[in-house]
Amino acid sequence: MKIGIINVTGYAGVELARLLHGHKGVHLTSVTGRSAAGQKLAQVFPHLSDTGLTIREELEDVDFVFSALQHKASAEAVIPLIEKGMRVVDISADFRLKDAQEYEQWYGVRHPKPSLLEEAVYGLTELHRTQVRGARLLANPGCYPTGALLALAPVFKEGVIEPDIIVDAKSGVSGAGRTLSMGTHYSEVNENVSAYGLEGHRHLPEIAQELSALNPKLKPSVTFIPHLIPMTRGILSTCYARFSGDNLRRANLLGLYREFYKGEPFVRVVDTPPQTKHTWGNNLCIVYPTVDSRTGRLIVVSCLDNLVKGAAGQAIQNMNVMLGFPETMGLEALAVYP
Amino acid sequence: MKIGIINVTGYAGVELARLLHGHKGVHLTSVTGRSAAGQKLAQVFPHLSDTGLTIREELEDVDFVFSALQHKASAEAVIPLIEKGMRVVDISADFRLKDAQEYEQWYGVRHPKPSLLEEAVYGLTELHRTQVRGARLLANPGCYPTGALLALAPVFKEGVIEPDIIVDAKSGVSGAGRTLSMGTHYSEVNENVSAYGLEGHRHLPEIAQELSALNPKLKPSVTFIPHLIPMTRGILSTCYARFSGDNLRRANLLGLYREFYKGEPFVRVVDTPPQTKHTWGNNLCIVYPTVDSRTGRLIVVSCLDNLVKGAAGQAIQNMNVMLGFPETMGLEALAVYP
Amino acid sequence: MKIGIINVTGYAGVELARLLHGHKGVHLTSVTGRSAAGQKLAQVFPHLSDTGLTIREELEDVDFVFSALQHKASAEAVIPLIEKGMRVVDISADFRLKDAQEYEQWYGVRHPKPSLLEEAVYGLTELHRTQVRGARLLANPGCYPTGALLALAPVFKEGVIEPDIIVDAKSGVSGAGRTLSMGTHYSEVNENVSAYGLEGHRHLPEIAQELSALNPKLKPSVTFIPHLIPMTRGILSTCYARFSGDNLRRANLLGLYREFYKGEPFVRVVDTPPQTKHTWGNNLCIVYPTVDSRTGRLIVVSCLDNLVKGAAGQAIQNMNVMLGFPETMGLEALAVYP
Amino acid sequence: MKIGIINVTGYAGVELARLLHGHKGVHLTSVTGRSAAGQKLAQVFPHLSDTGLTIREELEDVDFVFSALQHKASAEAVIPLIEKGMRVVDISADFRLKDAQEYEQWYGVRHPKPSLLEEAVYGLTELHRTQVRGARLLANPGCYPTGALLALAPVFKEGVIEPDIIVDAKSGVSGAGRTLSMGTHYSEVNENVSAYGLEGHRHLPEIAQELSALNPKLKPSVTFIPHLIPMTRGILSTCYARFSGDNLRRANLLGLYREFYKGEPFVRVVDTPPQTKHTWGNNLCIVYPTVDSRTGRLIVVSCLDNLVKGAAGQAIQNMNVMLGFPETMGLEALAVYP
Repeated sequence: MKIGIINVTGYAGVELARLLHGHKGVHLTSVTGRSAAGQKLAQVFPHLSDTGLTIREELEDVDFVFSALQHKASAEAVIPLIEKGMRVVDISADFRLKDAQEYEQWYGVRHPKPSLLEEAVYGLTELHRTQVRGARLLANPGCYPTGALLALAPVFKEGVIEPDIIVDAKSGVSGAGRTLSMGTHYSEVNENVSAYGLEGHRHLPEIAQELSALNPKLKPSVTFIPHLIPMTRGILSTCYARFSGDNLRRANLLGLYREFYKGEPFVRVVDTPPQTKHTWGNNLCIVYPTVDSRTGRLIVVSCLDNLVKGAAGQAIQNMNVMLGFPETMGLEALAVYP
Repeated sequence: MKIGIINVTGYAGVELARLLHGHKGVHLTSVTGRSAAGQKLAQVFPHLSDTGLTIREELEDVDFVFSALQHKASAEAVIPLIEKGMRVVDISADFRLKDAQEYEQWYGVRHPKPSLLEEAVYGLTELHRTQVRGARLLANPGCYPTGALLALAPVFKEGVIEPDIIVDAKSGVSGAGRTLSMGTHYSEVNENVSAYGLEGHRHLPEIAQELSALNPKLKPSVTFIPHLIPMTRGILSTCYARFSGDNLRRANLLGLYREFYKGEPFVRVVDTPPQTKHTWGNNLCIVYPTVDSRTGRLIVVSCLDNLVKGAAGQAIQNMNVMLGFPETMGLEALAVYP
Repeated sequence: MKIGIINVTGYAGVELARLLHGHKGVHLTSVTGRSAAGQKLAQVFPHLSDTGLTIREELEDVDFVFSALQHKASAEAVIPLIEKGMRVVDISADFRLKDAQEYEQWYGVRHPKPSLLEEAVYGLTELHRTQVRGARLLANPGCYPTGALLALAPVFKEGVIEPDIIVDAKSGVSGAGRTLSMGTHYSEVNENVSAYGLEGHRHLPEIAQELSALNPKLKPSVTFIPHLIPMTRGILSTCYARFSGDNLRRANLLGLYREFYKGEPFVRVVDTPPQTKHTWGNNLCIVYPTVDSRTGRLIVVSCLDNLVKGAAGQAIQNMNVMLGFPETMGLEALAVYP
Repeated sequence: MKIGIINVTGYAGVELARLLHGHKGVHLTSVTGRSAAGQKLAQVFPHLSDTGLTIREELEDVDFVFSALQHKASAEAVIPLIEKGMRVVDISADFRLKDAQEYEQWYGVRHPKPSLLEEAVYGLTELHRTQVRGARLLANPGCYPTGALLALAPVFKEGVIEPDIIVDAKSGVSGAGRTLSMGTHYSEVNENVSAYGLEGHRHLPEIAQELSALNPKLKPSVTFIPHLIPMTRGILSTCYARFSGDNLRRANLLGLYREFYKGEPFVRVVDTPPQTKHTWGNNLCIVYPTVDSRTGRLIVVSCLDNLVKGAAGQAIQNMNVMLGFPETMGLEALAVYP
C-alpha cells in the first residue's frame, strides 16, 4: 500500500512522515511541498533522511493520501482526489464542519463542495469508529477539539452535566505551525504565557458540533479559551461544567469514564492529575475527571501531544481503521520522557 | 531607615533584597537565613554582591522588617517583633486569613496568636490602602490571590456577576520556591504542563475571604485551579463568571474597570489580551476584562510577575504606604522584555 | 530472553525501559529500584504503564541485566552477577577505566574488583564491535565521551591531528540525572548557561584512554569543558584540534570521516552543521567535521541524545551485538522533531 | 538633554528605550521605526507605555542620537547626523572596523564614508574610555566581541599568551534580533542547540582588530564559533589559549585580571565559574580566568546580557562617558534573578 502526503513541510506533515516511516503495513512513497519541491526530504528535515524521499510538486501514484495543507488549499487538493475515488485523510479543517454556512462564517471562504461535508466523517476515532471504517473522506479533528471532546464526551453523552461548559486549554507552540509569525518568534514566546482567540477560536464550532451529536437533548454553550505556553508539544485542557442532577460521587465519575473508554487503546482514564509530558511523541490522550469538593463542579483535565493524537497520530489511527489494520499499528512507541 | 529581611535565601527574600537595594528611601542593612548564615550574600547570590551584606542567623538592629519565611516559622519569628513594637510585612500566609480555624484547616497547624489575625492588614494595597497606612502587621497576599482578586474586584464589588466563579491560573515555576522537589526538577517541568491542587489549593480561602469582604451580599463559590507551566516567572489568571443581570456591554465593562483602578500606579486595565512577559521583573498587574460574545460570559485575564506584584514588589509597595513614601518608590523599573 | 534493569528509577533506567518495551527480540520482565520498591512502574512513570511491571527490591530471574545504578553501587551489584555467569551491560562508570588507580583518583573509592577492569569491554560499539560481541561485562560509555570520541576517532586514529585537543560540550539537564540538586532546579537552570567541571570532569579520563587506544603513537592532551544549557536532552560537542601535517582540505576530511563510519547505522557524517534536535529520542550521533579556513584548525561538531546514544540506546545497541540481534533492533524509531 | 532612538522596534532599540526611561540625566523624547510609524510605542511594546511616546518616521529635534538600525541602513542614517554636528552612538556594525576593505569583505557592501572609520571610536568603554569621552561618532561593539574581548584583554595586552585563540560562545536567541526567521522560530530553537557561523562570523574581525590594538606585537589568530541555545538573553564565552612563557599560577592570573579591571564598575572578576543568569537585565560582564591544571591551558569564561552590556547598556555607558554623566547612571539596577 503506497501512501502519499500532500504538504509534508508543515509540522503535521513532518510528523506524518516520521510515524508512517515506522508503520509496518504501508509504504510512504510520495511527499509534496510547494516551496521545497525538488529538495530531498533529508535536506529540509534531517531526521527524516532514512525515508530517502524527495519532495515533489505533485503527488506520484499512490493508494492512499494524507493532506496536511492549510484549510481552503486542502479542499482544493482533496476534492479531485475524492472524485477520482482515492481515500483521503484531510488534516485541515475543510471537511470537519457539517454546515457549509458555519464553515464560511469561521473560515471566511465559501466552501467549494458542500455536498462532501455530509459524507465526510469526523475522525475522532473513539466516537465515530464505525463510520471511519467506511470513510472515503476523513476529516481529522483539530488538536484542541480532540482534547476537549475526549474529556467531555462521557458526561455529555450521559446527560449528567449542564450544557454550559468552559474549556481552558494550554498549548505548546508547535500547534501554531511552521509558518513564521511574531507570535511564534522564540524571544517573544519564551518565558511568556498569553490567552488568545478570545473573540472566538476556529476550533470552537467543532467542539459544539460534536457535543451536540453526542446528545441532541443538550444544547451546548461552550466558552473555549486557548492559551499559548512556552513549550513545543502538548495540550492540556481543563474543562469545567456543572452536574445537572445530583452530583456524581468521584468514584462513580471515574467508573463512568472507565466504562465509556473501555478497550480504547489511545484513551487512558486516570485518577491523578496528568501531565502533557506523559504523552510526548505518542498517540495517547490521558483523561482525568474529578469533582471540586467545595463547589460540586465537574473538572476534567485531558492531555495529549498536539502533533500526534492532535494531528498526525490520530490521522494514522484513522487510516488504520479505514484500511483494516490493527488500530495501534505504527503508533506503538511509548511517550519519550523526560 | 534600616530594613531587615528574615530568610533572604528563598526567592521572595532574594527579590526583596534586589528591589530594596534600588530603593532610595531605605537601607537594607540586615538579612538572615538559617542554612547560609555566615556566608556573604554575594556568595550565594552573585547578583546581590553590590549589597555588601553578610547573611546572619539573627536580625541585627533594624527599623522595619520583612519576613520571607514559610508559614508557621514566619509567625514564630514575627510575633515577638510585633510585641516589641516593630512594624512588619509578612510575606508568608500566617496572617492573611481572618479566621484561625480556617487557618488551621488549610495549614494544618494551630495558629499561635489568633488575636493578631484581626489586627493584621491584608495587603492587597489597591483594596486596603487606608488600613495599610496604619498597619503594624501587614499580611502580604499570595501570588495567585493577587492576580485573581485584581481581576475580579471591580465586578464583584459592583455586584454585577454571579458569585459562582472559576479561576484557571497558569504559573511559572519560581512560585514553588527555591526548595528542591521533583515537581520543580528541570527535566520534569521543562516541556510540560500540569494542573495541581485540584483537591483545594491554600490560596483559595484568601480569594474567598477577600471577595466576601468586597461585597457581603454575594457569597463567593470559587473553583480555583492552578497550573504549572515551563517558565520561571509570571502568573496569568483566566477568570470566568456569569453576569447576574443584563450582560454588560464590553465598553461598559472596560469603563467599570478603568474607573475602579483610576490612578492606581500598579494596575493597568487594557483592551487587548495581555502577556506575562509585559510584567517581567516589575510590579504591574495587567487586567483585561472582556465578554464572550457567544455565551455572554465574563472573562477576565490578569497578568503579573509572581515574585514582584505577587510577592516582593507588593511587599515594598505596602512598606511605602506604611512609611509614607511615594507608593512607587523603588518600583519604577519597567518590565524587562523580551 | 528475559531482561532485567537494576535501578529503573533514574533517567537512564527509565529510558532503557522505554526502549526495551519496543524491542521485538527480548522481554523486559524485571526492574528494581530501592526507594520505589513495591510501586507499579506506571505509578512512578505513567508513560511506562504498558509494561505492566512492578518495581522490586531485587531482580527476579532474568537472562541478561542492565545496571543503571550510580558508580560504586553498580559495581557492588554487578560483580556477583558476573561471577554467577550473567552477562551485564553496566551504564555506570565502574568498569570504563582500565586503570584501577585512575578509577580511584577520579571516583574517590577503591575499585572493588580491579581484575574485572581488563576483561570489561568499553562499549563504544563503533570502535570495539568485535570485543563487544563476546563481552560478559560491558562498560557502557559516558554521554560526553560518546560524543567526543565519535567526533575525534577518525582523525586521531589516522594521526593527522596534533594530540592537543579541546572539547567544548553543551549538555541538556537530564544528563545530571533525576536526583534533586540546586543545579538542576528549574528556576536556576532555565534562561541560564554555565560552564562546570573546570577542575576536571570525570568523563575526561575515558576520553583520554580511548583516544590513546586508537593511536598509541599520540599522547592525547585534552581540555574538556562541559556546559549546562536549558534543555532536557541533547549534547553538542565542539572539538578543536590542529592538523599535524599539511592541512586536510575540507573534501578530504569529509571523505576520511565517511570512510571511517561507512556502514555504521548510528553515526551519520554530514556536511552542514547539525543540531541536537535531529537526534531527539533516537540513537544517532551526527558528526560534522570542517576546517576553519582562516586558522586552518580542525573543528568537529557532534550531536546526540544523551539518554539514548549517550546512555540507554547505546546500551541496547551493545546488547544487540552481544546477543546476536541485528544491531539496530529496537532502535529504529526516528528522532522526534520538532 | 533630549535623546532620540532611530529604529526603536528591534530588540536593541526596545532595550535602549527601557533603560533610557529610567535614566535621571536625559529624556528620551523621540523614537523612530519605519514599519510601525504612527503607532504608540505602548501599542507595540506594552512594557514601554510609561514613556508616552509615539513611533515616528523621522527623528524629531534631539540633542543626542542612538541608531539601532541594521548595518548599511545605519550608516546612511548616521552620516548626515554627524555632518550636522550631532553626537551619535551607533549600535550597528557600520563604524566598528577601521579598515573599509575589511568592512566590505564581511558585510558585502562598500562603506559609504570610509573617512569616518578612523574617527569613529570603538566603544568597548573599558578599553577606550579616553577616546570615548571625546567621541562624536561612537561605534558600539557587537555582543560577542564584548564578551570575548573583556575575557582576553588582560592576558593579550600583557603578552602572556600565544596569539592562537579559540572563542567558543553560547548565545540566547534575542541576539538574532526581532526579524522573523526559521532559525528563531520557537519550535525550531526550543530543546535544541547548534553551532553556526563556522564559515566565519561577522563579529570575528572586530575581535581580531581590537586584540591587535591591545598588543601590536602579537598577531591574533582567532577561531570564533558561536552557538545558539534555547534561552532569550545571555552570552557565555569560553576562551582557550596557551600561555606563551611559564604558565601563570592561578593566583597570579586572578591578580592580573583584578588589577586590569580595578575600579571598573561593569566588569567583575570572579574566582568561581559564572552564569549568564547573574547578569540578566544588567550591564555587568563577569570574567572568570582559570588554568586547566592538566594541560596548563588558559581558560577564561565570561558572561553578559547580550542586550545590555552586549548592546543597549554599553551604548548608554558610552553616552554617559561622552556626556560627562557618572558612568553607571541609569545602569544601576541589579540583575533579575531567578
